[in-house]
Parts: sequence; structure tokens; C-alpha cells
Amino acid sequence: MSYERHNIESMSGYVPGEQPTAADVIKLNTNENPYPASAAVAEALAAIRVEDLRRYPSPTAQRFRQLAAAYHGLDSDNIIPTNGGDELLRLAITTFAGPGEVVGIAEPSYSLYPVLTEVQDCRLQPVPLLDDWTLPGNFTAVLNDAGARLAILVNPHAPTGMLMPAAALREIARDFHGVLVVDEAYVDFVDPPQHYDLTAAVRELDNLLLLRTLSKGFSLAGLRFGYGIGAASLLAPMMFKTRDSYNTDFIAQQLACAAIESVDQARLSWDRVRQERQRLAAELARLEMPCLPSQSNFLLAQCRSAADARSRYQKLKHDGILVRYFDQHRLQDKLRITVGTPEQNQLLLQHLAGQVG
Amino acid sequence: MSYERHNIESMSGYVPGEQPTAADVIKLNTNENPYPASAAVAEALAAIRVEDLRRYPSPTAQRFRQLAAAYHGLDSDNIIPTNGGDELLRLAITTFAGPGEVVGIAEPSYSLYPVLTEVQDCRLQPVPLLDDWTLPGNFTAVLNDAGARLAILVNPHAPTGMLMPAAALREIARDFHGVLVVDEAYVDFVDPPQHYDLTAAVRELDNLLLLRTLSKGFSLAGLRFGYGIGAASLLAPMMFKTRDSYNTDFIAQQLACAAIESVDQARLSWDRVRQERQRLAAELARLEMPCLPSQSNFLLAQCRSAADARSRYQKLKHDGILVRYFDQHRLQDKLRITVGTPEQNQLLLQHLAGQVG
Repeated sequence: MSYERHNIESMSGYVPGEQPTAADVIKLNTNENPYPASAAVAEALAAIRVEDLRRYPSPTAQRFRQLAAAYHGLDSDNIIPTNGGDELLRLAITTFAGPGEVVGIAEPSYSLYPVLTEVQDCRLQPVPLLDDWTLPGNFTAVLNDAGARLAILVNPHAPTGMLMPAAALREIARDFHGVLVVDEAYVDFVDPPQHYDLTAAVRELDNLLLLRTLSKGFSLAGLRFGYGIGAASLLAPMMFKTRDSYNTDFIAQQLACAAIESVDQARLSWDRVRQERQRLAAELARLEMPCLPSQSNFLLAQCRSAADARSRYQKLKHDGILVRYFDQHRLQDKLRITVGTPEQNQLLLQHLAGQVG
Repeated sequence: MSYERHNIESMSGYVPGEQPTAADVIKLNTNENPYPASAAVAEALAAIRVEDLRRYPSPTAQRFRQLAAAYHGLDSDNIIPTNGGDELLRLAITTFAGPGEVVGIAEPSYSLYPVLTEVQDCRLQPVPLLDDWTLPGNFTAVLNDAGARLAILVNPHAPTGMLMPAAALREIARDFHGVLVVDEAYVDFVDPPQHYDLTAAVRELDNLLLLRTLSKGFSLAGLRFGYGIGAASLLAPMMFKTRDSYNTDFIAQQLACAAIESVDQARLSWDRVRQERQRLAAELARLEMPCLPSQSNFLLAQCRSAADARSRYQKLKHDGILVRYFDQHRLQDKLRITVGTPEQNQLLLQHLAGQVG
């Protein structure tokens, strides 16, 4: 017989992107940084001895909190370390939105949000993006009218890569009656001239929760380390009540500290990704696959049709190049392509141009 | 203002045992294995390069599932890897017990169970242990009458260390209408002549979920790696729906595989702990601190009074020796002492005998 709750039984799980174990696959499907983490992280890894793992880790990852606070110009109680960004999303939902209560999202966006909402048995209120992929002006009003307790926006947006200005998000947080989560998983790849920075806003807006991750910008997807930034009062219930007591492990804490301390080295990889993003977008446009203006480390490339997108995805996969195809409304005729190294991008372009394979 | 749900606002969080960073503290308070993990685990750690962390890990930790299945004589879909045993407890509650539904536990037991129950807004049904610390014969009937969807028992029991026979647990699982979680965090320290083994029972009992962890028996508390054993049908909703998609990281997966593959080396540490457990219990009895018969890696030692227990705890702590004191019903006049190395135990005994400090 089945023992699971009805809402769990009736839902479908999240399907992660393909994670092949073969090293020779060109993997442009799950937005990893194409460059490895810094030498400081490598040193921190080499310094860990198996004896260090005998004891429990710091339950609060306190040293990381202090380093991240210094990096953002905040206090350590404005930082909550989590087992990847996914854990922070789950914590936000379980802490702030009860079963039957409303969680608002933009549509389309990261497909994990509806899944986590279903696990908690909340009601999802999706707000469709406009034709130009921006958020409708009545987003906050719609959610307030629905009594939403939580809203989740991803910025830069996934899967378009487009950036919403910080001022617009501050305005939403100010007017929204619930907690606004801004998933900034890709924020490290924003062009510096955009001056996008919401971190200081958590000092004034006690309902604003920023999600950061070391998976993309810091090349540590395999480590599972993310963190939240918010008012101490907002983080406290997640930090001291709903979080698993030892949610991040000793090694992840050590490497995360080294990554934040050596951020200047990670910044070099962000620059290289931005340069390649520009070049790749221009080349894709030349191949009649125009992309939306991305401030992320991926591009959403337009194909001639849904059939064309599916066939290109399949052909690339056959040739050992993985990109992401979403079989859903408004995305069926597009491919989401992670910006790789110049060599990887060149190979991708050659395959798309039909020059190989 | 406060945004958290009412049940979260009104609850208290779990308070983990003290985790001092000073290396010279004799730490007998959170049941770590006093011996380090195997040489094979050390080799697996040394083999990891920072480049390995650039990509996402296996979302399902598939290789570990296969190795653990082989170790237990089961199939890989009988295994669910988790971020420490704590995650499995949370998953079991969120998957099988909805808000307002009943979760049964024995009292006293691991103080995390009521906390996780409160986070999910379930109703807790505690069943007091008898005077001899065994479970009352009507445990199952009480929970079935209350309509409990989930029951959690820890075996060997914490904090007494006492072992319930496997046959009794099979009987409870057979008669209970919900899911029975048996938290076997300390199972590796059971004396082999007890022939305690519930793993084969998951083939017949589709509501039986066993919790295992590498924290104690495999000396990897700092790594956060546990797993569940159960029928494939029982594990599937946790594996594919309620679990965070990448809940265990690449390093933890590699080291966990090495740990399971080198279990014979861990077994040597279990033998040493068992020998010391016997010696320490005998010596504590000589100091008029008799212990309950423990099949775990800790002893629950009786003090003269609650005041005596508190004062011994404080004095030991002042002398750099941490043990666990629980200020709660039936435990106030006792100390829970992790079995350490012979040298650590000797120092503890000398301090308790008043020969030092």
C-alpha cells in the first residue's frame, strides 16, 4: 500500500538536468562555470585530513557567516549557510508558507519552485511574464490580492538570462505583504556597469531574502554550498528552527570559506564568461539563432520552430554536446546554452553550423 | 514584523550538543567514534581534485546505493542516501505525515524528533517508556488508536543505549498502520552475538524504514552522510519527490563509498569501542555510578541526585571533559557519556573519582 501524503502522491518530482559521468562530454546544460575554483580552494581541500571528519562540524558554519558578512558589508546574522541554494528555497517555503497558503512565482522560471510548493502543499500562483519577458506591473498587487505569503523571483532570470533592475525588486519587496525571495544564483555574471546590488537593501527591507550559491560563480556545484542574505529577524527561524542542525559539512565549510576569501580569483572567471557570452551570442545570431540579452552564464537561443529546437538538441547530444531543452509553453522553440570555454563554444558553433558531425 | 508560520513561531529549535573547536577538549558528549575513518577513506579524500567539484554531483549518489545494497544484501532501490541521518528523519515526516496528523515516539528518546514534528505542524504522541526503560506492550495499539501515520523508535535506544530485539520491532512494523522508522544510528556497536539485524525485514514489511549513518560507526560525523533502508515503494517518494535534488555532495559520495567498501577496518574500531564500553561501565559501577546495559557507543550513568549529576557535568566541563547532561524528566540525575579511547576514559574516571582537578 502507499503511505505517502496525498499531495506527494499526486505530484511529479523535479527532474534535474542530465549529469553524465563521462569526462569527454561538452556539458553546456546545467550552467556550471567552465573554469575550476581558485588555487586557495584547492589548498583548503588538500589541507583536510580524514581525522578532521571524525567530529561534528560547526552547526552554524560560523566562520563562513563572518567571511560572507565581510564580503557583503553586513553582519554575520544576515547570513544563513545552506546545503546548496536548493535548501534555502525549501527552508523559505517551509518556514513562511503553510499548507494551503499561496506562493507566487513568475512563469516561466526555475521549475524547482512549483515542485517545492507542491511538497509543502501550498497553492501556487504563477504570474505569466509579458511578451517581452519582463514582469507585469501588477505582479505585487496580484500576489497581495491572493494573500500570498511568499514570492520567488530569479534574477538574472532563468531561463532567459535577463536582468531586472534592483530598484524594481526593492519596490516589490516594499509593497509585497509576504516574504520576497530573490534567487541570485547567477548574479556573479552580471556586467559590473549594471551596478546591480540588492545586498544593502536587506538592512531596510525585513522581508527580502537573497539566495546566493557557490555552484556557478565559484565553480563548486559538486560541493553543495549556498547561502541566504536577509534581515536577522527573517533568517532566525530558518537558522535556529527549520534548518537541519548540521546542514553543511566540515569540508564544504572549509572550501566555502576559502572560496569567499579568494573571490578575486573567481572574478577572473566571471570576466572570461562575460566576454564569451557576448561573442557566443553574436555568433549564434549570425547562425539565425538570436538570444535574449543575458546577464547570466547562459543564453536562451531562438530556433526556427519547436521541431527545429528538439532536433538540434538531439543532434548535439548525439555528438557529445549537452544543452538544455524545455518542453514547455514559450520555451519549446528555444535552447538554453551554458557559456563554456572558448574552445567548447567554438565546437558548439561548428556543430550548429553543420560544419561537423 | 514576523513572517514565520504560527507553528514555527511558537516552537523552540533543537539545541545540538556543544561542538568546541579546541582540539584538546576530551569530547565525550556527542557520541563520535574515538578512532578515525579507514585508510581507504583517507585515500579517497586525497584523490579528490578541486576540478571534480566544478560539475554537479550524481543527484542520486548511485554508486553509493549500489555499494550499500551489496553490503546489506539488498537492491540499490532499497537505499536512499541523505545529508546525514537528520535529513532522512525530516524526509520521513514531510513525506508520510501531514500537518495535524499524528507522529508517535517513545519518551524519552532523541530530542530532535519532537522538533521535526513541530516544524511539520504534526501532533506528537509520546509513549512513556516503562520503569525498566522498555517500550510498553501497547505501543502499537496506542498509536493505531491515535491514527498515527508515522512512528520513530531509536534502537539501540538513546539515551539509554539499551537494545530492543529485532523480533519485537518486526512485530510492531507488522501491526502498525503507518510507517515505522527505526533509527539505527548506533547499530554498528551492537555485540555480534545479539544477532540484531532488521535489514532483511524490509523485503516483507513495506512500512519499515531503517536509518543508518556514517557519523558514528564510520567516524565521519563531519561529512554528513546517512542513508535509509526500506522497500523501494516506501523510498520512492522521498527519493524522487521530497528530497532536495542534489542532497549529497561529490566529496561525501566518494568518501561514503570508500567507507562502505572498507567496512572491515571500521569493524576494528567497533570492537575496540565494545571492549572499552564494558570496562568503562564496570569502572563507573565501582564509582557508584551504575549504567544501564548499553549496546551503543555511550553509557547512561546514574548519579546520586540531579544536583550531583549537574555538578559533575559542570566540574568535568571545567576540567576540559565534555559529557552530556539532559535537564529533563527521568534523565536529570544521569550523565550520558560517550565511550572514548582507553586514555580518554581513564582520565574521565580519574576526574570522577576525584583523583585530579
